[in-house]
Parts: sequence; C-alpha cells; structure tokens
Amino acid sequence: MDLLSDLKSQFLEALKQRTSHAEPATLYDPVHYILDLGGKRLRPLLSLMAAEMYGAKSNDAMGCAIAVEVFHNFTLLHDDIMDAADLRRGKETVHKKWDVNTGILSGDAMLIMAYQQLDEYEGTQFKELTQLLSRTALEVCEGQQYDVDFETRDDVTIDEYLLMIKLKTSVLLGCSLQMGAIIAGASKEQQQFIYDYGIYLGIAFQLMDDYLDAFGDPETFGKEVGGDIRENKKTYLYLKSLEHSQSNESLKKWFALDQNTLSEMEMSDKKEKVKTLFQQSGGAQATLDAIIDYTEKALNTITQLEISDENKTFLKRFSLQLMNRIS
Amino acid sequence: MDLLSDLKSQFLEALKQRTSHAEPATLYDPVHYILDLGGKRLRPLLSLMAAEMYGAKSNDAMGCAIAVEVFHNFTLLHDDIMDAADLRRGKETVHKKWDVNTGILSGDAMLIMAYQQLDEYEGTQFKELTQLLSRTALEVCEGQQYDVDFETRDDVTIDEYLLMIKLKTSVLLGCSLQMGAIIAGASKEQQQFIYDYGIYLGIAFQLMDDYLDAFGDPETFGKEVGGDIRENKKTYLYLKSLEHSQSNESLKKWFALDQNTLSEMEMSDKKEKVKTLFQQSGGAQATLDAIIDYTEKALNTITQLEISDENKTFLKRFSLQLMNRIS
Repeated sequence: MDLLSDLKSQFLEALKQRTSHAEPATLYDPVHYILDLGGKRLRPLLSLMAAEMYGAKSNDAMGCAIAVEVFHNFTLLHDDIMDAADLRRGKETVHKKWDVNTGILSGDAMLIMAYQQLDEYEGTQFKELTQLLSRTALEVCEGQQYDVDFETRDDVTIDEYLLMIKLKTSVLLGCSLQMGAIIAGASKEQQQFIYDYGIYLGIAFQLMDDYLDAFGDPETFGKEVGGDIRENKKTYLYLKSLEHSQSNESLKKWFALDQNTLSEMEMSDKKEKVKTLFQQSGGAQATLDAIIDYTEKALNTITQLEISDENKTFLKRFSLQLMNRIS
Repeated sequence: MDLLSDLKSQFLEALKQRTSHAEPATLYDPVHYILDLGGKRLRPLLSLMAAEMYGAKSNDAMGCAIAVEVFHNFTLLHDDIMDAADLRRGKETVHKKWDVNTGILSGDAMLIMAYQQLDEYEGTQFKELTQLLSRTALEVCEGQQYDVDFETRDDVTIDEYLLMIKLKTSVLLGCSLQMGAIIAGASKEQQQFIYDYGIYLGIAFQLMDDYLDAFGDPETFGKEVGGDIRENKKTYLYLKSLEHSQSNESLKKWFALDQNTLSEMEMSDKKEKVKTLFQQSGGAQATLDAIIDYTEKALNTITQLEISDENKTFLKRFSLQLMNRIS
C-alpha cells in the first residue's frame, strides 16, 4: 500500500502549511501540539483516496482532508478534558500539559479552523462540503453526549448502542469519504454509497475495538486490555452478554463495582471473571458475528461503487487490513 | 424605536423555531436554556437593521441574525466556564446548573448550530457569510486568549489592549452588520464601511464599560461597581492612568493586592483610593476622550453609508442610545 504512505506524506506536509497560525501562541501552540501527535490519519486518507478513486487529483481534496483531521483532533481534545484523560498517544493531553481553559479555547479554535479549510472551494461544492461538515459535526456531538448519558443508565438497548457508535465514530468516516467523492463530482447516489461504506466500516471497526478491549493481545492492542471492564463500560460485548439470562445477574454484579474500591489483584480477578462470562454467555461470539456482518456490508457496498476494478480490490484490501487486528 | 422592538419579537420567534433540536435532551436543554436567558439581542438586531437599511427584507437576514446570536451565546457559555462564573444574567450559568462537561459539549454544539443557520443561503452569498463567520469566530477566540494572557502580564500596551477588545467584542458587531449588508447585496465598499462602523461602536462600547465599572451608577450599572478594580483588571482606564508617573507606583501597589487577602472594608477602601488615582492621573479623562473619539468615528462612518437620510438619522440615534449610559 505504497499509495497510502505517499498520500500520508503529502497530507502531513499540507497539514503543517495550512495550520501555521502563530499569534497568540498560547492559543495556537496547543493546536500544533495535538496535530503533531501522530496517528493513523485514517480520515484524511479516506478523503484523498475517495477523490482519486472517483477520478480527481488527490491534492484537490486536501482542504477536505485537513478539515476532517483538524475536526477529529478537536473532538479528541475536548473529549480528553471530559474524560479527565492524562495521556493521548503516549503523550500528555493538552489540558494536562497546559490547563483545562487552554484546552477548551484551543479546541474551539480548531473547530473553526476545520471549517476554514473548506474556504478553498467554490459554489455548490463549497456549500455541499460545509453542510456535510456541519451535519456530521453535530452528529458527533450527539454521539458523545449519548456515550456520556449511557454511563449512568442501565437500560441501554443494542439499537441505542449502535446508534451511539454510529454517531460518535462512523459518520465522520462516511463524511471523509463523501467529501472526496464530492470533490470528484460523483453523483448523489455514488456519494451515498461511499458514505454508507464508511458507516459500515466504522461500526465494524468500533465493535472490533470493543472485542479487542477484552480479548486483544496485550502486546499489540496499544491500550490497557480490559480497560472497558475496569470502567464498567456498557459495550456491545457487555450488552449482548446480558441477553443471556444465566450470565445476566453475575455480570451486573461485577459491573456494579466501582473501580476505585478494588485492589489491582481484585481488578485482575474481575477482568478474568467477566471475560469468562462474555464467552459463556455467547456475547463474545455474537460480537464477532456482528463484526463480520458489518464488514461484509462494507465490502458489499464496494461492489456498488463506480470506480475501477483495481480500485475496488484496493479498497477491499484496505478494509480488511483495518480489520486484521483480529487475527 | 418601535422598529427595534418589532424586529426583536420577530427574531425571538424565529430563534425558538430554528433551534428546536430535541434529542439528546442532555445536549440541547442547556442550549435552549442559555438562548432563553434574554439580553439585548444587539447582534441579531444589527444584522436585521443593516439588511433593511440596504433595502432587503429584514426576514431575509434572519439566518444571519440567529447565527450571530447563537455564536455569541456559545462564547458566553465557554467563557463562563473559563471564568468559573456562577451567574449569567442573574441566573445560574450552564456549567453550574449542569456541569463543566455539559457546558463544554453543549457549547461545541452551539458553535456548529451557528454555522448551520447559514444553510438557507446559496452560492456566493453562502460562501461570503460562512467565510465571514469563520474569520470572525477565530478572531473572537484570539481576543479571549489575549484577555487571558494579559491577566499575568504587566507590560500590556494601550495598543495591545485596544486590539484585544477589538477582537473580543467589536469584530462580531462588525460581522453582524456586514452580514445584513451582504444579504441586501451591498457593494464590498459599503460592506467595509458598515463593518468599520461596528468596529468603532464596539470599541467605544467596551471603553464605556471600563469607565462605568469604576464611575457608573450602582443603581443602573447592572454589575458590581468596581468589579474590575477588585479583580485587578488591566483596563484602558488603568493603563492610561499608569502613564501618569505620579500615580504609577501607588496604582501598581494597589493592583498587586490579591482580592482574597482583603476584607470587604479594605476592598471598599481600595476601590475609593484607586478611583481617586484614576481621576488625578488624568486616566479617567483620557478614557472619556477615547470614548468620544471612537463614538465620533462611528458616527462619521455613518455619513459614508449609502442608505436613506432617515436611516442615517435612525442609526445615529441608535448609536448614541447605546452610549447614553454615560449621562
């Protein structure tokens, strides 16, 4: 996938150039800091790829690519404040390195900067891109709010959970892809197909994250295995396991324990017990089934795209590579 | 000024209709709460007035009016968090009534909702309005950051202070007016004149606020008289007074006292002493001179507007009425 590393280099170069606001440094230094922390740069790559696949020059989608990446990092910055997280990609979070007020205001500036990246477009293209960014951005806020609300509810349904992860994660992937298609002048129908591909891929990706949180390889997972269990997060894995009546009561009991009341040994015991319940209840299998189901939906959508066969193959390989963390 | 109360009623009706997002309630209830707190609604009125004066129907500028008001309230919401303020217009602030996380996320949603209000416009008009909103919004963030930075600096110059209040307050007034002119299809030159009028008016208005904080009538000022002195705020009044060498050292000494170390009686004494120094140094008079200077600049700009004489008279009366808190 040399194409991807080429696109990523072009993107990183452009990102640096187009977010070089300087004064006041106290506002923009945190912006540069978080944008420099790295990451897969998945969203901008999706914009650039989609533009190329539909026949545009990837560089014509650079404004979109930077917009979605700056927007994504704005959400990380504000989410880290709300989660009181100390670390992001192994480095101090912005509100930790500076302070909460700096984090709030620099995040606000990033949301505006994301919109400004679209200023290079004109006419209906400018309008379609801006409207799509607004709709998506508001949906992401709604998804984040549902995630917060679910923490204190014990009647969250599977459908509600799926809606939450769709809003919080998938719509921005769909938006990134659709922006690329808009740049290339693809039809509304084609825009919808590639958007849907992003939605399915995003849900599959998030469900995989839920699964790997419990059953991932500590060597490669990148985060604490069992972190969701520690925080009593009502993931798909948990909700599906609850549907199995025999595990129901024990699971609820484990998830009623506050992490601050457990020693590390007790927490380690809790993680093992919960993982066994996830397996015995069939919740783990149901989650794998759902991951496969959404991945297949994403792959099926690819067949409907009016792009070259070569590009379809490329996109399928790309999708499976994103998912290959399971193997 | 019956026209203004008519416009305000129309605005309030439209505001309610166009910000009626419902779910999740935990995200949108705080949005409705802060938008319902009231206020002069100065910014939306400026958009509607400017549109009418340049020959459009005020209702055609309603999207702009709501955009600037929702944006303004977004800044209030996040500023109140940063200032740890308990009250806003005599009611609990959002982060106090709910919590800080709610305040951050609902504020983010409002910034996006402000942009969405412009979706009703098309083509170059949509682009001009959106670009103007982005540029202004980022400037307001920069102004807020300078304001924060100045708290811990003791070498702030008059020019820096004027730049800060221009960014924090004036540019949004200019933007509100220019948006109305854009809706009416006014020329770029005319757009610039009415924008400049807003800039001058905003600076005069903010300097007046600095002056009244010390010398206003406690009955009508609406806030604590001497609040800036309590908080050692480096206002225009303070900075100008410092230029007078004889008051310089005493003023600096008073402004080095932390408010938490003074009894209310000592604070009352400090306020009186500082006010006397403001007067003796000539700082008070210099501030009044500057207010008159910027008000005259605003009034002079009105003469350059291509609007009816009746409207010019109306706008002059309106400007002086905004300033009449001095008499």
